[in-house]
Amino acid sequence: MTIASTLPELDTKLKQAHLLDTVGALLSWDEQVNLPPNSADLRAAQRAVIADVQHSAASDPHIGELLEFLEKERAQLTEDQRVVLYWARRDYNKATKLPADFVREKAEQSSRGYQAWKQAREKNDFASYAPVLQKNIELAKREAAYLGQGAAPYDYMIDCFDPGMKAAVIETLFDELKIGLVPLVRQITSSKIKAREEALRGFPVERQQTFLREVTQAIGFDYGRGRIDVSPHPFCSGSGADVRMTTRYHADNPLGSLFGSIHETGHGLYEQGLPIALHHTALGRAVGMGVHESQSRLWENQVARSRGFWKFFEPKYRATFPEQLGSISSEELYLAINAVAPTLIRTEADEVTYNLHIVLRFELEKKLFAGTLAVADLPKTWNAMSRELLGLEPANDSEGVLQDVHWSDGGFGYFPSYCIGNMMAAQLWYHVLGLRPQLEDDFARGDFTWLLGWLRKNIHALGRRYDTLALVKLATGEPLSPKYLLRYLKERYGPLYLS
Amino acid sequence: MTIASTLPELDTKLKQAHLLDTVGALLSWDEQVNLPPNSADLRAAQRAVIADVQHSAASDPHIGELLEFLEKERAQLTEDQRVVLYWARRDYNKATKLPADFVREKAEQSSRGYQAWKQAREKNDFASYAPVLQKNIELAKREAAYLGQGAAPYDYMIDCFDPGMKAAVIETLFDELKIGLVPLVRQITSSKIKAREEALRGFPVERQQTFLREVTQAIGFDYGRGRIDVSPHPFCSGSGADVRMTTRYHADNPLGSLFGSIHETGHGLYEQGLPIALHHTALGRAVGMGVHESQSRLWENQVARSRGFWKFFEPKYRATFPEQLGSISSEELYLAINAVAPTLIRTEADEVTYNLHIVLRFELEKKLFAGTLAVADLPKTWNAMSRELLGLEPANDSEGVLQDVHWSDGGFGYFPSYCIGNMMAAQLWYHVLGLRPQLEDDFARGDFTWLLGWLRKNIHALGRRYDTLALVKLATGEPLSPKYLLRYLKERYGPLYLS
Repeated sequence: MTIASTLPELDTKLKQAHLLDTVGALLSWDEQVNLPPNSADLRAAQRAVIADVQHSAASDPHIGELLEFLEKERAQLTEDQRVVLYWARRDYNKATKLPADFVREKAEQSSRGYQAWKQAREKNDFASYAPVLQKNIELAKREAAYLGQGAAPYDYMIDCFDPGMKAAVIETLFDELKIGLVPLVRQITSSKIKAREEALRGFPVERQQTFLREVTQAIGFDYGRGRIDVSPHPFCSGSGADVRMTTRYHADNPLGSLFGSIHETGHGLYEQGLPIALHHTALGRAVGMGVHESQSRLWENQVARSRGFWKFFEPKYRATFPEQLGSISSEELYLAINAVAPTLIRTEADEVTYNLHIVLRFELEKKLFAGTLAVADLPKTWNAMSRELLGLEPANDSEGVLQDVHWSDGGFGYFPSYCIGNMMAAQLWYHVLGLRPQLEDDFARGDFTWLLGWLRKNIHALGRRYDTLALVKLATGEPLSPKYLLRYLKERYGPLYLS
Repeated sequence: MTIASTLPELDTKLKQAHLLDTVGALLSWDEQVNLPPNSADLRAAQRAVIADVQHSAASDPHIGELLEFLEKERAQLTEDQRVVLYWARRDYNKATKLPADFVREKAEQSSRGYQAWKQAREKNDFASYAPVLQKNIELAKREAAYLGQGAAPYDYMIDCFDPGMKAAVIETLFDELKIGLVPLVRQITSSKIKAREEALRGFPVERQQTFLREVTQAIGFDYGRGRIDVSPHPFCSGSGADVRMTTRYHADNPLGSLFGSIHETGHGLYEQGLPIALHHTALGRAVGMGVHESQSRLWENQVARSRGFWKFFEPKYRATFPEQLGSISSEELYLAINAVAPTLIRTEADEVTYNLHIVLRFELEKKLFAGTLAVADLPKTWNAMSRELLGLEPANDSEGVLQDVHWSDGGFGYFPSYCIGNMMAAQLWYHVLGLRPQLEDDFARGDFTWLLGWLRKNIHALGRRYDTLALVKLATGEPLSPKYLLRYLKERYGPLYLS
């Protein structure tokens, strides 16, 4: 073995495992976008067999030999090669410590879980969903145990989505955030100024699609390497070579779909900015979901809810929907874009109260994993916390505990990333404003290239070289802090609601 | 080893290989329906890796051991088990005699070939496509040689699509057909009665979709286990557990899309009628493309172009398109449905002249494989034969040699199946009319259950127990013959054009 021969061999192996991963992701995308209602069994079997062969590829003992050799030669490797090696080892350990049977069981459960969730939400039937949730928690704990993390399974789950992050760190950040956020939310929601969102009605879906495409293309999404479709729960999957985003349309909630789609476009832009040729190694992979969310949130909120953005797009929006917007003034439209109103549905929440939805889920996940909350008691506790935090109690579980897809396939520990992303987005925003104070003037001309260029260079191109906390420090010169998010919320919403 | 333990083991192995096959088919469907234009490289790599793992699964040496054991115990097996064994052996030999490198090369070439064909057709640029075609022919010949069929590679290709069929058999059937068909086409095309297809204009796509769904549901397609989308070239893929059909819409050619879709629905009905639990064995698999085409053609032509069918659907069609059909009489509509007019495009051809398109392609394929026609000369020869057989010469290659997708991924030997299917469909038609003379009265009431039930029992449920020729004999009591197709064309088109 030589370094010169081992590195390309490892590369080939990693590429095969990655490609099988992308096939699994496509099956999952197709399941949510296209799958006929009675084809779920076949899809579960297909996903299981792909998980199986992916697991075989990722746990090929030859990878272990290559890694061992390279680890001995570590001193000879470049920095980048060490990054690849570090993550390849981590992934290999994960692949080899999880038995093939377990991986298959989890994949099957994930597919069935999604179908069960969909049905339960439709029928408002938490009881039918509870066993799925129970099993998903058990599977997560078993997985943590297989990887020697049985003592802290929730930390393990968080680390799956946001490597390096821990529940205790999140708790500290969230606590500081709450101190500032709770009074701010109280101030704003008791303001007499109210957005007239209900005035936005009857926006034909086809024209929404046209406008959406114009916006997402303008901010830089490359439709030559991606697409947007419709699914019950919006998401962004695929890799930069073929990004698959989804949204949902409601004629009477055009902004929900628009901003949801810009959010997914932010994810898509990150994926498209990662070096394509290196997608199969850590150098071409996203840091984690926290950073991913920082990108989606930055475009959705700091950018697309700004005055500058709407200076450019308002005339186009009015041209697309002349009747629908005829009786709405510019200021009313801008207020609707930045509407604040507590809602039961996280994905429809305004960005001021959004973080309270996350706190709710973070607290519940912690308790579920600590065993201090039983699955059967989840609806009751959800409803109580919802009343306490949001001031609203769900009338039924479909608008409560059944609203999110995440837990249906075992995605515990994912929710905190949204709030980490919000904090990071605001911190990036003030940093780039420091570098280019005229940024909103760019937007007002429909020019998003400077911002995208900066993100490409300082975030996207770096792949997984740094974890979330290190990347924030490197990109902004400061450790991650909630203070920028608080400042941003005050500066954007204060003048609208508190003046 | 015992029979009791070996059979389920073989079953598991076949199921895995089959599932990977279905994943490959989904990648291919997605490529033609959804793939962003610049994502072709990723898709080629994905298809290659799936072909690779599928090949590994299908050529697992343990399958060979199981087969050898079962072959020794053949006397103890049931008839059905022998069918499974026979085809499992055939597939295993095919999988093990083709080197993995070759399989991968072919899969990559197939994906690239499709993209090259699409671009060549768009740009009317045969020269850019010729090397793809040349390579596809070489790959086909190499494949035949690997399987000991190097002396008759075209027979080998035909057998891939229609097991048991040979070029010489097809030639005999086609020759008999031509004797009757050439004068009939001459008679009909020189008739003064002409369909007013051009009167059907401006059919909104959305309403076409609504009507199409109503028709395809009425004849029995189960949308719980399938869907229909849009692609440049209509096709039907997937298995009965998840059938993926495609069509294309033109506002000014509503019948083209409607009948194309009913055609694909016929394929879909066959797939949905195969026993789902046995899809991975010969007992749950279609006989071949000839029988497949007999099902699509029967529904498209004998059924959906009948008077009875339109007695039921004409009022619904008029209700869906009141303005578009306002000035068209019932008889004019029925004539348009059964329009005869030579066209350059096979997929738009009427069913009388359709078979001449197939004869053209069959003759060219024979010559390409015999080496008596060079790829570079293909456009010239195509155009000359087109003039001779159809009386029309393509103005450019896009409407000539570049019109069909089949050759782009090496699908030589497939075209004859269309004509075999036409002959078989007509033969089935007269047979079922003998059993149930009031069949068109069923249709006039919107009832297609008797016919579908008969096909389910006598064709679909049998899987691959019989090859095409044997199945026709079993189902109709007579060997396959072109005489029923000729009779059908005379009886349907004679009264319309020659009275």
